[in-house]
Amino acid sequence: MTAPRFDVLAIGNAIVDVIAPCDDAFLAQEALEKGGMALIDTARATQLYGRMGPGREIGGGSAANTCAALAALGSKCAFIGQVADDQLGQIFAHDIRAAGIHFDVAPRAGDPPTARCLVLVTPDGQRTLNTYLGASQHLSGAAIDKSLIGEAAVLYLEGYLWDPDEARLAMRGAIDAARAAGRKVAFTLSDAFLLNRHGDDFRGLIDDGLIDILFANEAELLGLTGVNDFEAGIAALAPKLPVLVVTRSEKGAVAIAGGERAEVPAQPATVLDTTGAGDCFAAGFLHGHVQGKSLSESLTIGAVAAAEVISHYGARPEADLQALVRETLG
Amino acid sequence: MTAPRFDVLAIGNAIVDVIAPCDDAFLAQEALEKGGMALIDTARATQLYGRMGPGREIGGGSAANTCAALAALGSKCAFIGQVADDQLGQIFAHDIRAAGIHFDVAPRAGDPPTARCLVLVTPDGQRTLNTYLGASQHLSGAAIDKSLIGEAAVLYLEGYLWDPDEARLAMRGAIDAARAAGRKVAFTLSDAFLLNRHGDDFRGLIDDGLIDILFANEAELLGLTGVNDFEAGIAALAPKLPVLVVTRSEKGAVAIAGGERAEVPAQPATVLDTTGAGDCFAAGFLHGHVQGKSLSESLTIGAVAAAEVISHYGARPEADLQALVRETLG
Repeated sequence: MTAPRFDVLAIGNAIVDVIAPCDDAFLAQEALEKGGMALIDTARATQLYGRMGPGREIGGGSAANTCAALAALGSKCAFIGQVADDQLGQIFAHDIRAAGIHFDVAPRAGDPPTARCLVLVTPDGQRTLNTYLGASQHLSGAAIDKSLIGEAAVLYLEGYLWDPDEARLAMRGAIDAARAAGRKVAFTLSDAFLLNRHGDDFRGLIDDGLIDILFANEAELLGLTGVNDFEAGIAALAPKLPVLVVTRSEKGAVAIAGGERAEVPAQPATVLDTTGAGDCFAAGFLHGHVQGKSLSESLTIGAVAAAEVISHYGARPEADLQALVRETLG
Repeated sequence: MTAPRFDVLAIGNAIVDVIAPCDDAFLAQEALEKGGMALIDTARATQLYGRMGPGREIGGGSAANTCAALAALGSKCAFIGQVADDQLGQIFAHDIRAAGIHFDVAPRAGDPPTARCLVLVTPDGQRTLNTYLGASQHLSGAAIDKSLIGEAAVLYLEGYLWDPDEARLAMRGAIDAARAAGRKVAFTLSDAFLLNRHGDDFRGLIDDGLIDILFANEAELLGLTGVNDFEAGIAALAPKLPVLVVTRSEKGAVAIAGGERAEVPAQPATVLDTTGAGDCFAAGFLHGHVQGKSLSESLTIGAVAAAEVISHYGARPEADLQALVRETLG
């Protein structure tokens, strides 16, 4: 097998974030589930946008954020996601390409417009996501470039892709292409609320041995395994996966692979906006893993990337991640 | 005369900022005049955007930023500027209205698209502006609501409006409407490079007694008066204006009105991005002036607002300016 052209090819919803601070009362007034991700339609997007404060628009989307952090760490990445032929689509495409990521999915003409996520950030740094999927839900099998999948050491998929019907149907083909090419498949559960809608699908992928590296946070681990205890969840899930990575916010993170277990604490950070913490943690771990680093080192790179991104607004790194990793790992 | 409905009505180019850090080498490669504002056409905007790093989009435009800071300070504001009927126009309009500012200029259909400014921020915090005027240059006399001008204590105009032909021609009507209604006219010179194009016009407005409050920075003061010395510039200009305010970056600011002179130092700040410093300083001074504060207090409010905005990316305030002013003025 030839050396892969890319370290990671990620597929995800192509979203521009619209980020605004708000107070807890606003979340209550709008009946928003703090810390979660809700899908919203055009009418609700217009209504909620009209009620929220002045925003800042920054390229987002979970897997796309992971790509941006991977690229900042020095990994070679490609991204597949669907934008519309509009100004937000131009912003998304620019931001991805300017980060050095290969992206060549043609914009989709006509309605609906490019996806946006109304990100409401409370004073505690927690983010509450309201996603209008728009064009991103029309990611079709035709956009899944199987030769590109064959050129990447790892295919990385976000659980959010299971919400749009077209994208969900396209993912099985992507996984098959990766496995046929002898590549690894990494998957993030994305959001505990997704398990209500797609938990059986996710468990099926794992039970069928289609996932090599799984990323989950604590709530997702418990939701997926149906247990109430963190260690019981790990014990239930780890044997089914070559690599399991579980993040625990300020309690750090755990990885289990082939019977080996590593844990790291969270890196110190002044929390302003937690958007992208999980995305950047996954990037750091994957970067280390692909480079052949130990589980512990890979987790630490994840923790460094997560600490950087929660210290500012926006879900993609701004500081020099490679320098931060050198300072931490020595 | 009835109490005005608004403290300030501002007219300016309606621009969305696209902000990205860069190094000095990039400015040199692109032959950009550091710290200045260059007008760029569609081809150059596409080229430069393609070469710059990932951005963040935030509502901008000099006078619009001044409005946003005025509103954050508690002033009642209205804004007039022209956007297109596109996503960037929606972003601009949302950000202005969400800041509590009256804005009802209808978006302009068809090309050109909404104005954007490619803001390149070097590690020293200096910003270099590259403005694609787009729809904003089609601000016409019809958009200048003269009854609205009569409802505001102060009409605030940015010098940048003198670049687009239609807007420049509309400004004289706006000034006449303000004076006919017994309102004050405030004007910012905006950028020393503008004096090469419109210096004679600006001097004419001042000599004709049409400007009540003039904002300038040191370079603009020297360019306007044609002298090489700060105090000589003040001595030449101050007698022609009821109120003259000159900002000197880290050296603070000076105001002269009716023979009285006040000076304040700059407020301490960790400089990340100086975009909007002058806009927010003008807002702070105007807010104090309209509230009947002393020259010194008004300058201090300006310095507080400027210090806040240069501590983060984006040209509009993010912190609670009213609280910061209370802490400083007591």
